[in-house]
Amino acid sequence: MIWMNGAYHLAPPGLPLSDRGLLLGDGLFETLAALDGLPLRAEAHLARLWRGLEALGIESPYTQAELMDAMERVAGERDVSLRLTITRGAGPRGLTPPEVIKPRAWIAASPLSLAAGPMRAIISQERRAERSQLSQLKSLNRLQDVLARREAQAAGVDEALLLNHQGRLAEATAANVFIIRKGRLQTPPCDEGALPGIIRGAVLKGWQVIEAPITPKLLMEAEGAFLTNSLYGARALIAVDGAPIGQDAPAPIIAEIRRAMFPR
Amino acid sequence: MIWMNGAYHLAPPGLPLSDRGLLLGDGLFETLAALDGLPLRAEAHLARLWRGLEALGIESPYTQAELMDAMERVAGERDVSLRLTITRGAGPRGLTPPEVIKPRAWIAASPLSLAAGPMRAIISQERRAERSQLSQLKSLNRLQDVLARREAQAAGVDEALLLNHQGRLAEATAANVFIIRKGRLQTPPCDEGALPGIIRGAVLKGWQVIEAPITPKLLMEAEGAFLTNSLYGARALIAVDGAPIGQDAPAPIIAEIRRAMFPR
Repeated sequence: MIWMNGAYHLAPPGLPLSDRGLLLGDGLFETLAALDGLPLRAEAHLARLWRGLEALGIESPYTQAELMDAMERVAGERDVSLRLTITRGAGPRGLTPPEVIKPRAWIAASPLSLAAGPMRAIISQERRAERSQLSQLKSLNRLQDVLARREAQAAGVDEALLLNHQGRLAEATAANVFIIRKGRLQTPPCDEGALPGIIRGAVLKGWQVIEAPITPKLLMEAEGAFLTNSLYGARALIAVDGAPIGQDAPAPIIAEIRRAMFPR
Repeated sequence: MIWMNGAYHLAPPGLPLSDRGLLLGDGLFETLAALDGLPLRAEAHLARLWRGLEALGIESPYTQAELMDAMERVAGERDVSLRLTITRGAGPRGLTPPEVIKPRAWIAASPLSLAAGPMRAIISQERRAERSQLSQLKSLNRLQDVLARREAQAAGVDEALLLNHQGRLAEATAANVFIIRKGRLQTPPCDEGALPGIIRGAVLKGWQVIEAPITPKLLMEAEGAFLTNSLYGARALIAVDGAPIGQDAPAPIIAEIRRAMFPR
């Protein structure tokens, strides 16, 4: 069942070809896990979405409470991955948005993978644009991540890490990156090109974390590393470009964070 | 009339919400002018599209000849702007493309503006990612251009110029930039973050042009400047951030290039 612009559909209508979300990537989304039908950290996701809408000058036709209600109904009583998408709406050709436009919102559910095992990554050829607002927005412009993930796929690993234009670590295609260094957690500041991830934010609140730039050298010399995202909480990152990260089994703090973030 | 995946529609079907073009911006497009129904430089547009499809690993379900024929039929005998879009197609949730996927292509026409007058621009806060393949692809990821164009709109000007992460000029949101310096044309190389524009390529072939980086200082001190894109050929750029470019009326070479590129 899909919710779209206020109505529930078993077979949702297609999107008009004039929607700017499709033509230009002019829109935002949030992906979140629902466990037993309860969307996890939904308030934080909606708050980030609202900040993004404000940055783009899109006015949501629905309140956060309406979207929360719709997310719960789409989730049912299940463990699912929810995706809430908002586009600026349909408009004439061209980049400049028309003065009057009606945004379009929908919510769909997908199966939730409960994979929790360690991950291997490569460092992508792609570079995150740390000097663009887009690095701070969960926008529909995800082709760079698709390209990087295709590199990972070709290398037979799970994820791709992206450096920024300074050559320092920004994030993974669909996750933030933390390292463990001298027993302490460290993650790149958002102005390095890291999306302000919801789990990232929760880890910053719940644990002592240093926000400081991470060079590839620092990453490779770390005692351990992990990735965070809303669909798996936290997973160990045990190898990058074929070289192991850390000497031992993943640090217990990683499983501790996962349990706290994602009780499955 | 819209052509979509081999059929002509007066009221085209909507796009499935699972199309990766919509979900992730996983697709490409070309915009080109048709005059009296004849698409201008269609071979060059299709060649660029094919290079992009290869970079993304998308196999077009249609040949260039089939797309050419469809563009001509959609254009009719009119002066129109044509947009040819190809997405990777519908897939399950997630960045990694599925092994089997059927791309989707469509062609739509819009009114063609024949504006030819001089343009004013600002320099955007956004920075083009010159270290990303995306800067070389006419992909569906155009939100950065929308953001920059909104800055231009707020400043009451026509266009926004984007610098790269080195602080040098890459291009405009929907155009390449040329300056006139010591009587010669100069434009940034593509590895500065400039899209390999079709008109840009034609100007490089037809005129003597220096491909070399352009700092904002060089731009502001230029004898003249102009923008090129497929929907207007060439237009003079006479002011940036409120300061005039050049001392005199736009150089005659700009009108000469426009006439050669865009005979209207």
